Amino acid sequence: MDTPDVLAWRDGYIEALDQTALPHQVRVLRISTVDELVEAITTLAVRGAPVLGAAGALGVALAVRQGGREGWDQARLDAAVKRIADARPTAVNLRREVSAVAARIPQGRAAVEAAALAVVDFSVTASQQISRRGAAYLIQVCGGGRLRVHTHCNTGSLACLGWGSALGVIRALHAEGALSHVIVDETRPLLQGARLTCWELGQLGIEHRLACDGAAAFLISQGLADAVVVGADRVAANGDVANKIGTYSLALAAHRAGIPFLVAAPESTLDEATPSGAAIPIEQRPDEEVTVPAAPAGTRALNFAFDITPAELVSAVVTEERLLTRFPAGDVSPRTAARS
Amino acid sequence: MDTPDVLAWRDGYIEALDQTALPHQVRVLRISTVDELVEAITTLAVRGAPVLGAAGALGVALAVRQGGREGWDQARLDAAVKRIADARPTAVNLRREVSAVAARIPQGRAAVEAAALAVVDFSVTASQQISRRGAAYLIQVCGGGRLRVHTHCNTGSLACLGWGSALGVIRALHAEGALSHVIVDETRPLLQGARLTCWELGQLGIEHRLACDGAAAFLISQGLADAVVVGADRVAANGDVANKIGTYSLALAAHRAGIPFLVAAPESTLDEATPSGAAIPIEQRPDEEVTVPAAPAGTRALNFAFDITPAELVSAVVTEERLLTRFPAGDVSPRTAARS
Repeated sequence: MDTPDVLAWRDGYIEALDQTALPHQVRVLRISTVDELVEAITTLAVRGAPVLGAAGALGVALAVRQGGREGWDQARLDAAVKRIADARPTAVNLRREVSAVAARIPQGRAAVEAAALAVVDFSVTASQQISRRGAAYLIQVCGGGRLRVHTHCNTGSLACLGWGSALGVIRALHAEGALSHVIVDETRPLLQGARLTCWELGQLGIEHRLACDGAAAFLISQGLADAVVVGADRVAANGDVANKIGTYSLALAAHRAGIPFLVAAPESTLDEATPSGAAIPIEQRPDEEVTVPAAPAGTRALNFAFDITPAELVSAVVTEERLLTRFPAGDVSPRTAARS
Repeated sequence: MDTPDVLAWRDGYIEALDQTALPHQVRVLRISTVDELVEAITTLAVRGAPVLGAAGALGVALAVRQGGREGWDQARLDAAVKRIADARPTAVNLRREVSAVAARIPQGRAAVEAAALAVVDFSVTASQQISRRGAAYLIQVCGGGRLRVHTHCNTGSLACLGWGSALGVIRALHAEGALSHVIVDETRPLLQGARLTCWELGQLGIEHRLACDGAAAFLISQGLADAVVVGADRVAANGDVANKIGTYSLALAAHRAGIPFLVAAPESTLDEATPSGAAIPIEQRPDEEVTVPAAPAGTRALNFAFDITPAELVSAVVTEERLLTRFPAGDVSPRTAARS
């Protein structure tokens, strides 16, 4: 993409594309303090599970710099690091990468910054590997031809750096001449599909159609997609998948239609410490994201930001290392669906 | 409701509440010509399957008046009547009531107007009967207690006159002290749930929460609803149901969760002439309803206004005359789900 970096370390501060301003404005944030980073994460200016991991890693480097400038003691530095880790609860990548980089603090600033930059670099590499492996899987199970792929939310460069996770798989299919077009859910309430995925696909010249989230299951039932590909914010040990709210209904529809439901995510999204989806904390966000501007003043909402798709509805999880079609818990054997 | 009539005949013209302006403005349209009526229907200022039936009936009376004023010949009158019947394709009520009232044209203006007013009056009566029968069904299958009911789109007074269809069932539950609260889907793209259902429930003092359409299946999977109740735009002979886009994913989720999925609609919505859902024409509406304002300029959309729920996912269809749990085609035996 010719646009500014999604996320970059500028020797002392973080530069990040403001994802709340896209697609109508391309605006770069200069993030110099932990407060600014936490604000950017909670408002979703910086978002997407793998990008949250990278931002968390850089956040530790930022906290060390700010602590140095402002003379923080260890307790204050620890508290700052914890605030970054806790800025959003569902994606495991954030707290995992914060924790990994924070372990280097005793080795000094240079070690912390090197570790943080390695997380960013690895995110790009992993994304390419996920993309190629996922595309190969879909070409195999769908039996060739140019595929029509349904996706949800945003899982491209903006969410993952590199090619992306689910959108990376789509990009790899496109690169191999194996993609017909993409159906993109708008992804209410914050419209990451309409705003971000349509923008990325437009930049890449990949044909796509936007649909309302409520239409997804019906479109799948009508045979308009050969496969569903989504990202993940956390995959539990039994294979249950937490992802952007709306994902579960796609999985139900794909299961009934007999088409593959592929989850694309880096290994850092897999969380052996969480036994099942029931143990994944689901972030609830402000009512106003749903109620404004259409509902009458004072209307209250249920605004869960993520949902849980049970493992038995997942055909496979693809990571930078492997293709998982069977989970350790043993009671799960996701189907490998043939193209209908 | 203390607000203006949803739809009324004022001896020569139609008065209708402009449903595109709600909830922020209560605006009444004065509709004096067939052109104005077709415009009001296609823009969804006048909407909801039973209200479309009543508006179509009054539309024939309007056409006869306009034809008298402007000296139309029979061909011109027939064309005007056909334009009303064709203004929207999916809800069978519109063309059915237009056709019934148009059959009175040879008997003169008074007969036409009496027939049209009878359609409006019957809509109110039918809605009360649907509401009570549906509430009794849910109380029976859910085993009592105060129910949490999930609904989609708008099916209240605004859509049906009287109490409504699905929202009428909810209102009847409330009147009997058998309702805890309602979960309302916002119903993109035109947000009839957020704008209209929340407004009606607010006027009635019925507790409710608004949710994004993509959240519906997940909320149901988490046990947050005891039943799903929706309206219908057409029910085919085999029991397949066409309703507002987004309905099918609720049916999938209710089926998996083992809670009842009730369809509430007048008999005029049942269409024996349509063998199955595959034969129901699904209206496609402009891309801009989905793309504006969030998506990049030039984004194209898939904007089906309705979806089809297969009969085997429907627990029952309740009308003003009966409760249908088994359809004539014989290959369908919808389950009567117990409360989970």
